[in-house]
Amino acid sequence: MHSGHASSAFPRDDRAGGRAALTHHTPSGTRDVLPDEMRELRAITDAVRHTFEARGYGEIYTPALEYEHVLARGEAHAADPAYRLFDEQGDVLVLRSDMTIPIARVVANRYENAPTPLRFCYVAHAYRSVRPKRGEAREMLQAGIELVGAPAPIGTAEAITVLCETLAAAGLESFRIGLGDAALFPALLQALGVDEVGTSAVLEKLAQRDFVGLSHVLTALSIPAEDAERVQGVAQRRGGPEVLAPGDGVLAEAARGLRDVHELLDRDVAERVIFDLGLTQRLGYYTGAVFEVYDAALGAPIGSGGRYDDLLGRFGRSLPAVGWALNVERLHLAAAAEKERRAWA
Amino acid sequence: MHSGHASSAFPRDDRAGGRAALTHHTPSGTRDVLPDEMRELRAITDAVRHTFEARGYGEIYTPALEYEHVLARGEAHAADPAYRLFDEQGDVLVLRSDMTIPIARVVANRYENAPTPLRFCYVAHAYRSVRPKRGEAREMLQAGIELVGAPAPIGTAEAITVLCETLAAAGLESFRIGLGDAALFPALLQALGVDEVGTSAVLEKLAQRDFVGLSHVLTALSIPAEDAERVQGVAQRRGGPEVLAPGDGVLAEAARGLRDVHELLDRDVAERVIFDLGLTQRLGYYTGAVFEVYDAALGAPIGSGGRYDDLLGRFGRSLPAVGWALNVERLHLAAAAEKERRAWA
Repeated sequence: MHSGHASSAFPRDDRAGGRAALTHHTPSGTRDVLPDEMRELRAITDAVRHTFEARGYGEIYTPALEYEHVLARGEAHAADPAYRLFDEQGDVLVLRSDMTIPIARVVANRYENAPTPLRFCYVAHAYRSVRPKRGEAREMLQAGIELVGAPAPIGTAEAITVLCETLAAAGLESFRIGLGDAALFPALLQALGVDEVGTSAVLEKLAQRDFVGLSHVLTALSIPAEDAERVQGVAQRRGGPEVLAPGDGVLAEAARGLRDVHELLDRDVAERVIFDLGLTQRLGYYTGAVFEVYDAALGAPIGSGGRYDDLLGRFGRSLPAVGWALNVERLHLAAAAEKERRAWA
Repeated sequence: MHSGHASSAFPRDDRAGGRAALTHHTPSGTRDVLPDEMRELRAITDAVRHTFEARGYGEIYTPALEYEHVLARGEAHAADPAYRLFDEQGDVLVLRSDMTIPIARVVANRYENAPTPLRFCYVAHAYRSVRPKRGEAREMLQAGIELVGAPAPIGTAEAITVLCETLAAAGLESFRIGLGDAALFPALLQALGVDEVGTSAVLEKLAQRDFVGLSHVLTALSIPAEDAERVQGVAQRRGGPEVLAPGDGVLAEAARGLRDVHELLDRDVAERVIFDLGLTQRLGYYTGAVFEVYDAALGAPIGSGGRYDDLLGRFGRSLPAVGWALNVERLHLAAAAEKERRAWA
């Protein structure tokens, strides 16, 4: 039923594509999901939700529309200007770009005095703006968890464990979890005296996994060439526990943090982890461990997450937290491609 | 767990309400759904979806955002200006206000040559603009079906039958289906020579169930007083098959259409029907039988639907069709209130 080339099994509607015969399009970056696919997506979200429940995560739904100032309080870039509209009272509303900030708001509003840790999950759509003709998704179905009030390393280890259980429940076998530390590069660059502008430029290239671009940016910084080389080297350290080999200062600190998480993982979960010191996330609210989900069957990450220990405090209840989100459509494509591969093996 | 006054069991977030202690609000007319309620809502949507599947209805998901010109092609008022935004290419997008028009678009695009009837269902959010401080919902979770290519009366009878099965699956016992004909009043007024402006004014009052206002509007029309009285009388004809008593002209035609549907219903479904000649729907795409769902436990209708035999043609594949949507939140409130009532009986 699915083609071998997983990412084209369910083509995205695109006016620039080969669907010229259609007269009434969906907006670029969105598409219709028909019953055969919908049945498979529901099977996946049911399995995922079952895993969440078994682990004590309670499902939350928040409105697709939020006040812009609420999202912006969580993260300046979370209020996507592409989805800004005005309500009857002149307030600015935006479509949510993820569920993490809305759930942080819910914790402050509705769980002001509740004992921690709090465990929440969701299966809901999120909205991002797209660049034309890149095949990016404007509307994404996400499934994820937020574990609130559980600090590192114990909370991080639980989040990664539930992540692996969820991927297995969705039918994936060949997945890997990339694990890095969002605080590492900002600290590394600060120690070298790099200013904010330089730091953002470096983080931008890291987030894009653009090592050539990173090298250019590092060379342009006013730091010694050997430091630039060292930073470039750290960004490319990726592999088993050996990449956490003794370093000094901020590097040693990040390595210790990641090792602490790794030691708390059961063996079958620990075996999934690939340490990746160059891993970072585009959203600015991540403060520590960050992770990304890969599957051999798919070119793009299936999901991502990390620690956001400062976000809850912005809404009035300061608590450490960690969470992740999976892109359900990519999860489905990876599961289908793996299944097909097994059938041919 | 639920209060006796069903509609206040889960208060809607409203800045004018008694939630002043909250610092970070959801937009008026929206609210957060927490795990206890979410679990109950999921139980209802699972039961509803199971009924749809057993009847051969395949689930469809369409994007929350549509091009404005696509929605407007279905119904001028369907493209709610409150939810208008501009994409990267300057096209106007709007949040869908129902799933009927998007599914009509899907049929024309993706089922151009498929044999009929086509059976589709959905469980998805729809968006409507709200008037401040009325407690109206801006975002609604809807569950419904569209039966495409099945004409009256057979298609209408199937839609009503599946509706009753769905309500029973959701745990409702004391529901009733109001059944009327959207074509009756336009035809009645046309036969009396009433112009378009007069007709809209009458339909508006009918849709609001405002019989006093209707009387004023009818008196102001330039038609004989006895005709105005007769029209007012028809609008209030509501009850068993006796309200379909012999009339003449358009009234006889509508009565015959409703009687034909009624005769095709199994007894347990037929017993749920209340004929209501004054029933009409605000959306302009309804062409024949229209229906509305009531439950003794709830003041407002739980859902509605009807025939829209002209809508599909606007998207390129002319087919008769009928469908309905239930408001899942109201369905839940009614089921909870009924359950509580039974516990006390």
